[in-house]
Amino acid sequence: MQANQILKQIEFIKEIDKLKYIVRRTKLFNSDRPENDAEHSWHLAVMAIILSEHSNSPIDVLKVVKMLLIHDVVEIDAGDTFIYDLQKSHDNTEEERKAAERIFGLLPSDQANELIAIWEEFEEQKTDEAKFARAMDRLEPLLQNVSNNGGTWNEFGVDFDKVYQKKQVINYGSSPIWEYAERLLNDSVEKGILKKE
Amino acid sequence: MQANQILKQIEFIKEIDKLKYIVRRTKLFNSDRPENDAEHSWHLAVMAIILSEHSNSPIDVLKVVKMLLIHDVVEIDAGDTFIYDLQKSHDNTEEERKAAERIFGLLPSDQANELIAIWEEFEEQKTDEAKFARAMDRLEPLLQNVSNNGGTWNEFGVDFDKVYQKKQVINYGSSPIWEYAERLLNDSVEKGILKKE
Repeated sequence: MQANQILKQIEFIKEIDKLKYIVRRTKLFNSDRPENDAEHSWHLAVMAIILSEHSNSPIDVLKVVKMLLIHDVVEIDAGDTFIYDLQKSHDNTEEERKAAERIFGLLPSDQANELIAIWEEFEEQKTDEAKFARAMDRLEPLLQNVSNNGGTWNEFGVDFDKVYQKKQVINYGSSPIWEYAERLLNDSVEKGILKKE
Repeated sequence: MQANQILKQIEFIKEIDKLKYIVRRTKLFNSDRPENDAEHSWHLAVMAIILSEHSNSPIDVLKVVKMLLIHDVVEIDAGDTFIYDLQKSHDNTEEERKAAERIFGLLPSDQANELIAIWEEFEEQKTDEAKFARAMDRLEPLLQNVSNNGGTWNEFGVDFDKVYQKKQVINYGSSPIWEYAERLLNDSVEKGILKKE
């Protein structure tokens, strides 16, 4: 029984290796090398541990970390969706749901159900844990773009208003981190690495 | 005060991006692309979450996950040590301690002390959390080498006895996972991808 459980878990562990090949638009810090989803997930999980004290509400840090470690696993089947690509972001939901069922479905059913629920919770953005996790997911590429003279903002011609609107989500998870992020955005306009009409 | 805390934490978050450039000897699953430390740390953290039920003793999963997410951060300064390179492994301790102090030292002091203590706990291998974390660290490259027809075992001419001795550490963390791993090692000898004198 336990041996059988382990076999299923190992199948999942092998499958998610593919996340290391899913490439994001955002580049590493001070770099032109694109980040992959496994690196991104690792970085967000560490950020959540380091920054959790700034959450607007008390949070279950282990749950936030689980969310962040697995939030992009569906992209193994569905591919990475660029945050400023509104069409694809809209179309992608059904594909991502199927991916979640296939990939988490490799696990013993209790665990599969738990991780699908955690993934859904992240997607729905309603709980305090999901809000804080999303704040991390918005903060990392902001820091990266600032370190890369505007990075994807310049590459894809995204202006201050659009960025500001997307990044405001940080405020739902943490007001003090949002204060810091807002200052970074304003500084970026002043430095000329983020365009404001 | 809180703003100042955030600035220090962000410095740490930027610094550890360098872990994405530290390359290991072991390759990704079914691949000849070497794994980097950030990808490796992400994978071990997910494995710990998925496999924690098999620990020999009850463990604090969040602590294990923290350990695994940061256990290689010192390699930013000290470099990766190949497990079968006994000379370097022996020489590296002092360099790694300095690295821990420099890198975790970027954080506010309470957090720096907490993470240095967690890193030391992992290194010392005495607590149940450290033993389970180390089991994950030994299991991932085993799975990878099996998927790569022997991988680093063949590349560096490491035989069954040497591998068996290193991998036994899995047993201190989890007997059922060790049973699974032991079977994999014996199968590897039968398949001819691991040499036994």
